[in-house]
Amino acid sequence: MQVVVLKKDDTIIKIKNVVIGGNEVSVIAGPCSVESEEQIMIIAELVNKSGVKILRGGAFKPRSSPYSFQGLGEEGLRLLRKAADEFGLLVITEVLENSMIDLVYKYTDIFQVGARNMQNYSLLKELGSAKKPVMLKRGLSATVEDWLMSAEYILSNGNSEVFLCERGIRTFETYTRNTFDISAIPVVHKRSHLPVFADPSVATGLRDKVIPMARAAVAAGADGLMVEVHHDPEKALSDGPQALLPHQFEEMMQQIRLIASVIGRTM
Amino acid sequence: MQVVVLKKDDTIIKIKNVVIGGNEVSVIAGPCSVESEEQIMIIAELVNKSGVKILRGGAFKPRSSPYSFQGLGEEGLRLLRKAADEFGLLVITEVLENSMIDLVYKYTDIFQVGARNMQNYSLLKELGSAKKPVMLKRGLSATVEDWLMSAEYILSNGNSEVFLCERGIRTFETYTRNTFDISAIPVVHKRSHLPVFADPSVATGLRDKVIPMARAAVAAGADGLMVEVHHDPEKALSDGPQALLPHQFEEMMQQIRLIASVIGRTM
Amino acid sequence: MQVVVLKKDDTIIKIKNVVIGGNEVSVIAGPCSVESEEQIMIIAELVNKSGVKILRGGAFKPRSSPYSFQGLGEEGLRLLRKAADEFGLLVITEVLENSMIDLVYKYTDIFQVGARNMQNYSLLKELGSAKKPVMLKRGLSATVEDWLMSAEYILSNGNSEVFLCERGIRTFETYTRNTFDISAIPVVHKRSHLPVFADPSVATGLRDKVIPMARAAVAAGADGLMVEVHHDPEKALSDGPQALLPHQFEEMMQQIRLIASVIGRTM
Amino acid sequence: MQVVVLKKDDTIIKIKNVVIGGNEVSVIAGPCSVESEEQIMIIAELVNKSGVKILRGGAFKPRSSPYSFQGLGEEGLRLLRKAADEFGLLVITEVLENSMIDLVYKYTDIFQVGARNMQNYSLLKELGSAKKPVMLKRGLSATVEDWLMSAEYILSNGNSEVFLCERGIRTFETYTRNTFDISAIPVVHKRSHLPVFADPSVATGLRDKVIPMARAAVAAGADGLMVEVHHDPEKALSDGPQALLPHQFEEMMQQIRLIASVIGRTM
Repeated sequence: MQVVVLKKDDTIIKIKNVVIGGNEVSVIAGPCSVESEEQIMIIAELVNKSGVKILRGGAFKPRSSPYSFQGLGEEGLRLLRKAADEFGLLVITEVLENSMIDLVYKYTDIFQVGARNMQNYSLLKELGSAKKPVMLKRGLSATVEDWLMSAEYILSNGNSEVFLCERGIRTFETYTRNTFDISAIPVVHKRSHLPVFADPSVATGLRDKVIPMARAAVAAGADGLMVEVHHDPEKALSDGPQALLPHQFEEMMQQIRLIASVIGRTM
Repeated sequence: MQVVVLKKDDTIIKIKNVVIGGNEVSVIAGPCSVESEEQIMIIAELVNKSGVKILRGGAFKPRSSPYSFQGLGEEGLRLLRKAADEFGLLVITEVLENSMIDLVYKYTDIFQVGARNMQNYSLLKELGSAKKPVMLKRGLSATVEDWLMSAEYILSNGNSEVFLCERGIRTFETYTRNTFDISAIPVVHKRSHLPVFADPSVATGLRDKVIPMARAAVAAGADGLMVEVHHDPEKALSDGPQALLPHQFEEMMQQIRLIASVIGRTM
Repeated sequence: MQVVVLKKDDTIIKIKNVVIGGNEVSVIAGPCSVESEEQIMIIAELVNKSGVKILRGGAFKPRSSPYSFQGLGEEGLRLLRKAADEFGLLVITEVLENSMIDLVYKYTDIFQVGARNMQNYSLLKELGSAKKPVMLKRGLSATVEDWLMSAEYILSNGNSEVFLCERGIRTFETYTRNTFDISAIPVVHKRSHLPVFADPSVATGLRDKVIPMARAAVAAGADGLMVEVHHDPEKALSDGPQALLPHQFEEMMQQIRLIASVIGRTM
Repeated sequence: MQVVVLKKDDTIIKIKNVVIGGNEVSVIAGPCSVESEEQIMIIAELVNKSGVKILRGGAFKPRSSPYSFQGLGEEGLRLLRKAADEFGLLVITEVLENSMIDLVYKYTDIFQVGARNMQNYSLLKELGSAKKPVMLKRGLSATVEDWLMSAEYILSNGNSEVFLCERGIRTFETYTRNTFDISAIPVVHKRSHLPVFADPSVATGLRDKVIPMARAAVAAGADGLMVEVHHDPEKALSDGPQALLPHQFEEMMQQIRLIASVIGRTM
């Protein structure tokens, strides 16, 4: 069954052996923050076993409160790269500001721009001349239109390797941390040529909602997922309550693989 | 694969040969409004062919403007019943006010309470003593908590056959008519014992978003869908732009059947 | 200084010696619910002393939970009328459903339609043929456009004595119960000919925010305020935390009288 | 009449002869963007005549689309300073990124952090060691709590001269550009010791709503206003439709002066 209609000029990004966009569904997984060498090695190994090819992990964390854990800094980047290399994975990590681009460039394969920076135009422009792909998360209160215009800041400055990531918007409903706007996935596909991922961990903030929402996002046509996993979330230094446990992550991978195949996607 | 965990006391509603809740995924389909005998007969026939067992259609329409088409009234109810009987279908239709309960009771199998009436407590209380099941749609700006408390108005007045329907909430995003809060599906399953449906037609307001969002809702664990279908939506008297065409509806049914089976549900 | 520009056809409602709209700023005050004869007498006396001409008080309360206090019913209406007559005040009270219109009519001078009923079109239509003025509160997630169309249901059914009341909309901000959309006041004045009041008690849900927000609403051009007052809010059966204490109410009246005169309004 | 209760440790900022906070209500006015020497001189002269002591004007403009006018850059800063000096005014202007701090420092008296940068923590931290006051605008979807925590990033890095500015939040209501959350003013006063301004121009996006909303903000206890003014808004390169005309600005100043005095504030 042919479900997803590719447009002639749809953006497909190739990084080593990984394809973002097109008919492929990709999964990015890892901890919220890099916390130690042991932690990132354990998690890299487990996500690799489930077939993941891109490892996530924050080294510089933007936190609402200045008194929360802010990340390991460059040491976090180094550990993330080391773990990824050990298991043949790509790295994605967040870049928070212009002065950090060169540093992050040395360690990452994909730059992540977080929700809070979606309209940091100066950062977007500079990433337009960076020579690596960029994943642009949707802002907390950004319309799809705002989001696509922010992507345009990167594209129009020369970097065509951009993909998006829906991560929930802020509404009056507070049971989930954000409201996961899954409809934005087919909307982006209609309005643009960019691949669009979805992050059910940040969108819901609740571990037991991640699997059903991961299935829903893939069923809606997402080109990939970003998911937080932790082998010991009780001890995680940030966002433990939304991280999948290893066996749940394995279960999620099995389920979305089946859903992807139902709608004619490969994974 | 066992995905949906039924709790011991989960509500299961049986109406003739139809089961709402439990392991079953059910589809309610039909036009937004009943417009004529010919129209409702054609649509009843086509949804029946795709395996639908519950026919929808509005006879009394709540419209934002007093100058919009308000429905055929009792004649609409009569035609809806006639078409359903012709094809062995159940009927669901909206009841707008207390004084209408007896009239609607004569023609329907399931009472629908619309989003605008979700906090019409007087109506809810009276439906608590009606002897037929009630589907309670979520209000435009109701939290899941508000919604469950409204259901409690019906339950606590004696009617235990209640199920819910997520149909989108109002947010700042205006590309889709509402924001389809698919996360509410697992939230309701966690917080209550009531089955929960989802309405991708009203939630998105856009025909080409209905199929992916129907898939997403089923993938997230919805116990059923409510979908608008029309054989000639250009001429529909209300909400034509969100009605699926017959071949699209057929396609949707095939896809959600596969998704349902992936997560261990029957349909 | 002439600030408020009256349009030629602006609606002005006269009820006995009270004027709603035009150059006048009016205050409606009283308890959330009528609780006892003693309570409503005390409060009627104190609001009357501060110059209020319209007494509020709920007899039938719409509550999110079926287990909360639901009001004294007709006895509440009777006590409200008695207290108002004692001090020469008009009465405003909420009508929840069509079947209640005749009953409420006997006791009230003005029908109040609450936020949850703003799109109860059947109720609105019937109030279109009631022979008393109607105050229509804004729905929790109603745009100004929706609100004006709801008013149109009353107007187009023959009752031209309609005025509106802004009472806060639902947003992501949860510090205040709702977000008081004061901008809606000049928007309504521009888009329609109807007077518009504002309710800072319900909008904020916080006693200590009522006075500054009352001042702000009058400064923005509101034609009146609806405010909750209680002589013993600790013991109030509903919404005590948002009721002004008697001395605060007195202070509010003094302040808004000054603000009204600054913008050329009489009170 | 004593209305505003100053807490012992309320922040009061003194810059030359200007006081921010305390009993004072201050007005910041000027064009959205600096466009030419002639333009900024005309506007500086006219706001000065009305008693304004702080001149605003954007030199680097963050715009949703990369194809919109982005400001004059350093030349804009130079012209803004020149105009301010000509009329003895202070300068406030926006700083968009860390690398721009030194440049902006040379020309401004107060750094403005815009809504899109409210959670640009790296920028906030660096402004914590800048030796000039900072005005922090509220993010489009920031709760008051988020906003105060962002202020804490500046304060905890050593700069105690911080004040806030409410400028509207994003909600479902689209008649006004944003929803002006005036209640946030007393909420901030209760929750913190920082002065809070309000920007009715950006909040409403509509010229004819600026005066009533300016009055409302002052009546609610705002410590000041930021307002856009233009002598020829039809030709403005950005946001012309929300700029007050000179005679309207004059009218606004008269009205808020009266309102300020009603609530015991000086201006």
